[in-house]
Amino acid sequence: MQKVEHIGIAVKNMPKAVALYTKLLGVDPYKTETVESEQVKTVFFQVGETKIELLEATHPDSVIAKYIEKKGEGMHHIAYEVTDIQAEMERMKGEGFVLLNEQPKRGADNKLVCFLHPKSAGGVLIELCQEIR
Amino acid sequence: MQKVEHIGIAVKNMPKAVALYTKLLGVDPYKTETVESEQVKTVFFQVGETKIELLEATHPDSVIAKYIEKKGEGMHHIAYEVTDIQAEMERMKGEGFVLLNEQPKRGADNKLVCFLHPKSAGGVLIELCQEIR
Repeated sequence: MQKVEHIGIAVKNMPKAVALYTKLLGVDPYKTETVESEQVKTVFFQVGETKIELLEATHPDSVIAKYIEKKGEGMHHIAYEVTDIQAEMERMKGEGFVLLNEQPKRGADNKLVCFLHPKSAGGVLIELCQEIR
Repeated sequence: MQKVEHIGIAVKNMPKAVALYTKLLGVDPYKTETVESEQVKTVFFQVGETKIELLEATHPDSVIAKYIEKKGEGMHHIAYEVTDIQAEMERMKGEGFVLLNEQPKRGADNKLVCFLHPKSAGGVLIELCQEIR
């Protein structure tokens, strides 16, 4: 793992959350992107080498809507940057982590991503992500 | 905010969590420290410029024990590094965030820390931390 690429935060109301994080971090967001396949709208802030990714559901069936229903707003996942996602997915599987997708899938911010099941990772939803080159 | 200084993860069983994070991150922890005042044992891993701080309760009354009872194991807080914690606490208060301690207190890893109430911060427990110089 190279670094914490981003921390995903589930939010109910994106304009309110953007105002809050702009105050908290003292910077404006640098990017907004909707990932249709995941039914989420994302807004990114940069802090040092890590991004804060705010996640808002665009549909009641979105995983983010379901997450908020169950657990409320807050920290949703931690994403680690890897240089070779295929190799890292193999390594994780070998170490006993459960992959939520067997093939890398396209995420926000020009990334290939794979999620690890929180039950295999101490209650934390882990994302591996590799920049698409 | 300078960077994400660390991410705090609440764990039930430290030896198991350390084994899991050693596999996940591919590195050994670099530090173990007990913070008596908070009734927690901490173990730190470095990933890029950010640390992963595993937190285990040393007493059933510890905030970590109560957190796990209520929400289960997983992400507990996000800590941002600041250069002047007093100034940043004033700024946060002015922006409407609720401080959980009115004076900076001593945290793990040679830090002065202040927590912001999750209810004022979109459901996320936020820590401000400044290296003790």
